[in-house]
Amino acid sequence: MVQTHIRIIYGDTDQMGVVYYANYLRFFEAGRSEYMRSRGLRYGDFEREHQLWLPVVEATVSYRAPARYEDVVTVETSLVEARRATARFEYRVLRGADLLATGHTVHACVDAGGRIRRLPRELLERLGAAEPAAAGSG
Amino acid sequence: MVQTHIRIIYGDTDQMGVVYYANYLRFFEAGRSEYMRSRGLRYGDFEREHQLWLPVVEATVSYRAPARYEDVVTVETSLVEARRATARFEYRVLRGADLLATGHTVHACVDAGGRIRRLPRELLERLGAAEPAAAGSG
Amino acid sequence: MVQTHIRIIYGDTDQMGVVYYANYLRFFEAGRSEYMRSRGLRYGDFEREHQLWLPVVEATVSYRAPARYEDVVTVETSLVEARRATARFEYRVLRGADLLATGHTVHACVDAGGRIRRLPRELLERLGAAEPAAAGSG
Amino acid sequence: MVQTHIRIIYGDTDQMGVVYYANYLRFFEAGRSEYMRSRGLRYGDFEREHQLWLPVVEATVSYRAPARYEDVVTVETSLVEARRATARFEYRVLRGADLLATGHTVHACVDAGGRIRRLPRELLERLGAAEPAAAGSG
Repeated sequence: MVQTHIRIIYGDTDQMGVVYYANYLRFFEAGRSEYMRSRGLRYGDFEREHQLWLPVVEATVSYRAPARYEDVVTVETSLVEARRATARFEYRVLRGADLLATGHTVHACVDAGGRIRRLPRELLERLGAAEPAAAGSG
Repeated sequence: MVQTHIRIIYGDTDQMGVVYYANYLRFFEAGRSEYMRSRGLRYGDFEREHQLWLPVVEATVSYRAPARYEDVVTVETSLVEARRATARFEYRVLRGADLLATGHTVHACVDAGGRIRRLPRELLERLGAAEPAAAGSG
Repeated sequence: MVQTHIRIIYGDTDQMGVVYYANYLRFFEAGRSEYMRSRGLRYGDFEREHQLWLPVVEATVSYRAPARYEDVVTVETSLVEARRATARFEYRVLRGADLLATGHTVHACVDAGGRIRRLPRELLERLGAAEPAAAGSG
Repeated sequence: MVQTHIRIIYGDTDQMGVVYYANYLRFFEAGRSEYMRSRGLRYGDFEREHQLWLPVVEATVSYRAPARYEDVVTVETSLVEARRATARFEYRVLRGADLLATGHTVHACVDAGGRIRRLPRELLERLGAAEPAAAGSG
């Protein structure tokens, strides 16, 4: 699990006075990107070197309590599954000890032509190395 | 079912050359708002008059094919359930006949203090009037 | 001058209850894109065919009155100058007869390597054709 | 001058492969909010206690070089003028030593009814305390 801290700005809020619901998917992405960096992977480099992309094919968010302007929220990101051609991340968004939201994303691995491709061994090894229980057998 | 048409702008895209995944929740919201207007309800007026809000408690998106810059996408919004204190909307995003994404949101009804409240009868009647099968018994 | 109509969504607002200030640059972009389409130019096609881009090098917004949730605002876009390698657009955002904001953007013409390039004659002719006074001699 | 560091996410980019131009106004806001906190002012508290708001009445951005995915950019924020009822902030966005963008915002002080109000003495004193040259006499 990797933690990312995000300061809520005015532009994240809506007229209900809380963070707009779509922005949690931005927070998840920040967490996911940080997760990869923590495993020595820069996602931008991954795209360039392998000419592979990991678009989101499924996303869910469960909203429990609102985040507000100036809060510093923590995104806890875990890789819970890495199969032949898909990876699944789970997220928890907290403010201190308060759980604000949970969710997950599923990613496919595709090439420049949009075809499904096997996740590169290097990626699986790196992602799985630090959390062995999380890497599936595909 | 109510249709809303949205023109994709540059600001909706990301460096993968397609619409960023969080923006589909914006499209869902545009569809939901249009759905209410089509039933004679302006959501902004609803908030002011009743001092009730309908925050999202759950959202999912399933991504099938990407939307791109300058596409005009259609959001098809349906109310599929309206219970005592929650409502559920479903969405389909299309470009012409191509289905790009599907998803749903669940909304709670809360007062200014954040307490769960019963959905006002007026709201249920209006929302359910045009799609009788969609209104639950609550 | 070309008009574009935009429905304000909840996600455009902030906790002040009005449209967040950065979103006016999104509205300007929607207007600019519509302006080009009205001259028979699809900006996406322009990029692909010429391998040229028109990044913004300068933007200003003057805010006079706030736009709010569910407003339908009108963006009036004009090309006021098209020189050798730059173009300048001006914008007015209105709600009915009320002027909400004004602003402008200046765009450079660059190639894939980021080098400044002359605006293609085809582009100048098309953009200038319908508003002769607007096309400068460069 | 106060520095704020921001990690660029995928959602900040557009299909040109660089940060979308409107997002610099988000970065400015993050810098402005941090500037106030560095002076012991939480802008959210300021709104609540004084029932005054500081909406943006003017914003400009000059774009020099693009920020890209995964960059960590630094926003340098300065208060350059604080008059009777307006304040002006200036911003520089850098990646390391490279200047990417500059800009400014002008803010009015208004009450809940939208009327122009004098900036509270407490605010002027706090903002000006650490940068005496920056506080005007109004």
